[in-house]
Amino acid sequence: MTLKHELTHIAKEAQAAARRLFCFSTETKNKILKEMARSLIAKKTIILKANRKDLRLARRKKLSAWLIDRLTLSEKRIKEMAQTLQELARLKDPVGEEIKSWDTPNGLKIHKVRVPIGVVLIIYESRPNVTSDCIGLCFKSGNSVILRGGSDSYNSNRAIAGILEEVFKKYNIPAGALNYLGTPDRRALDVLLKLNEYIDLVMPRGGEGLIKRVVEVSRIPVIKHYKGICHVYVDEWADLNMAERICFNAKVQRPGVCNAMESMLVHEDVACRFLPGMAKQFQDAGVELRGCPLTRRIIKWVKPATDKDYRTEYLDLILSVKVVKDLEEAITHINTYGSHHSDTIVSDDKANAAKFLKHVDSACVYVNASTRFTDGYQFGLGAEIGISTDKLHARGPMGLEELTTYKYTVYGNGQIRN
Amino acid sequence: MTLKHELTHIAKEAQAAARRLFCFSTETKNKILKEMARSLIAKKTIILKANRKDLRLARRKKLSAWLIDRLTLSEKRIKEMAQTLQELARLKDPVGEEIKSWDTPNGLKIHKVRVPIGVVLIIYESRPNVTSDCIGLCFKSGNSVILRGGSDSYNSNRAIAGILEEVFKKYNIPAGALNYLGTPDRRALDVLLKLNEYIDLVMPRGGEGLIKRVVEVSRIPVIKHYKGICHVYVDEWADLNMAERICFNAKVQRPGVCNAMESMLVHEDVACRFLPGMAKQFQDAGVELRGCPLTRRIIKWVKPATDKDYRTEYLDLILSVKVVKDLEEAITHINTYGSHHSDTIVSDDKANAAKFLKHVDSACVYVNASTRFTDGYQFGLGAEIGISTDKLHARGPMGLEELTTYKYTVYGNGQIRN
Repeated sequence: MTLKHELTHIAKEAQAAARRLFCFSTETKNKILKEMARSLIAKKTIILKANRKDLRLARRKKLSAWLIDRLTLSEKRIKEMAQTLQELARLKDPVGEEIKSWDTPNGLKIHKVRVPIGVVLIIYESRPNVTSDCIGLCFKSGNSVILRGGSDSYNSNRAIAGILEEVFKKYNIPAGALNYLGTPDRRALDVLLKLNEYIDLVMPRGGEGLIKRVVEVSRIPVIKHYKGICHVYVDEWADLNMAERICFNAKVQRPGVCNAMESMLVHEDVACRFLPGMAKQFQDAGVELRGCPLTRRIIKWVKPATDKDYRTEYLDLILSVKVVKDLEEAITHINTYGSHHSDTIVSDDKANAAKFLKHVDSACVYVNASTRFTDGYQFGLGAEIGISTDKLHARGPMGLEELTTYKYTVYGNGQIRN
Repeated sequence: MTLKHELTHIAKEAQAAARRLFCFSTETKNKILKEMARSLIAKKTIILKANRKDLRLARRKKLSAWLIDRLTLSEKRIKEMAQTLQELARLKDPVGEEIKSWDTPNGLKIHKVRVPIGVVLIIYESRPNVTSDCIGLCFKSGNSVILRGGSDSYNSNRAIAGILEEVFKKYNIPAGALNYLGTPDRRALDVLLKLNEYIDLVMPRGGEGLIKRVVEVSRIPVIKHYKGICHVYVDEWADLNMAERICFNAKVQRPGVCNAMESMLVHEDVACRFLPGMAKQFQDAGVELRGCPLTRRIIKWVKPATDKDYRTEYLDLILSVKVVKDLEEAITHINTYGSHHSDTIVSDDKANAAKFLKHVDSACVYVNASTRFTDGYQFGLGAEIGISTDKLHARGPMGLEELTTYKYTVYGNGQIRN
């Protein structure tokens, strides 16, 4: 069988499974999710053994410490994976929910009802917990899932998916509902992305290169979990102590994630008061600062920032800094250089805050809080399949509801059109 | 300036305009919409003159009577265009609407708020009223619009867009908010569809070839207004008189539109009672029937249907017919051969109706009503920019609300993440 035949077969089976999957009752799905959680715990030695194999290969390939950390599983991490599945069992099932309903003048009863999307393709990097999270989220929302994980976590992912497949089999869930594609073949991706007849949605989670390639090749609708170039703007009316705490948290608490601050904007009227103390804190925490000429006039040791710096997601202890002359400049800068992810204004001025919220074209816009809150759990969605930096269908943290679409069901009693 | 430079410039200006456009108040927008309506009526002679030019060219090109009818404007049609704009002025403004809001345990106040999408590209065929409808819908929902109409209606579209541009200019609406691209250059489309940095959504409305090409080339998210292969399934428990009225209406009332029935499925237990009378009615109305072997055993004069017939949107007085052995076969047939647009079951059996509604994977699924009701006006949305046969973002008739997305605005008082 050629690669194309094989993948088309998988996608077709996934579609057929999806058409049966959404008939499972909420009760049954929850029972199965709990058993999935128990099964991960019970078979943790299998997972840990597979993970050690991945880690040996990763060390041989001399992957960075950061990548190895992301890849490493422990009893604690497996327990967290199981907890996510248990949490999913507790969360409200969005399938079948009535969004709204109304009667038309001629007596048609129209119901707008939530239904699963169908087949979801998820492409992700070498973070094994994503495997069980995505399987759980798609299952609860009634979707078939096709997973293509990073090759460095192949053995760990394969073990996790295998354990969950066993549970699916026990409950007679059609095999097409869960597909883990281990193939590191890059051509596979190109083939998959043309199968828009069977696959309804693709969510790439990974580096910029991967995401650009997916957008270029895909005929399937894409929701991007793209980079986060997040800003904090310190307004002229900011509580500067609060601004210090928020900026420090947004940059330093976990610099390697998409909702960390990458660029700090400061109103010129407060720059001289705010920057020296803030810069000292960052210096003590090992943060490298790259600033505009005005920043560098205030803090001599700051390196110069290039235009490229303002477009860069460092994911590291590096921060670009810019002094702006007013709120308008801050907003324009964010809309031009940012990635429409998460941005904060620190200000006690209500009008400025409202203007910032209205004009910053990002998924999540904050007043007086750290950008680090953009997260499905922090938002109270209970789980998260990704953070959309797109505008269509879903924006910001995506939970179960964002994995559904709707249909209209219409009841008549013989109505015809004049 | 090269074509690419020119189009990039247009798209950038459209984006800049969108960022100002959504600040116009509902009141101002409604006032402008009413003036747009008045202006179309006042300048109808300009529109009619331009339309006559298009019609002369169309006759010279020997376009079909159907295409010429679609292209033809009259005082009545211009009045209808104006009425749509007036209706838009009366409709609720979706921009700024709070979809939901909640507080998190740490005191963040999260608001999910409707905002415009940004820049919408609409590609359509030679139906001049679409020009003013789309301009009105995008303006009311706060979006910039780039229109690329069919070349056969170039002069009519240009005249309509020109009149509305004048109104925009009078009210200082940024010029980038309304862009009518007259260029019949096919390369222009390929260039535009790569400008995903500036254009947020493309909606192709037209033939299958155009839509397939857009999906293939586009890096911008696409919502398709695709073909309608709509079915009516006459169940074994159908009121056969009602079934006759519904089938006749769905096929004959306006055969050239996407929500007309293209395929009729009949349960084998009622086929002998239902088909002869129904076929006679269709015959009298000039409908050509193409049927399966069982259909042809009952009605001798029916032509044989090929597999291709069941996948064809005739948009004409032709109907494919199939006798099915049960509800399951009907559902599977619809999900396999249909276009996920609109499908009806005629049945008095509640369980069968519920099963049909649940399992048919289409935007609009009906019990005991004509498929012809899938329409923004009939649904009570007040207006319609298209009917989505896609699943992401919008499904079925799309009105103002479907031209918006959302953002999260979050109020804190210094919250940082632990």
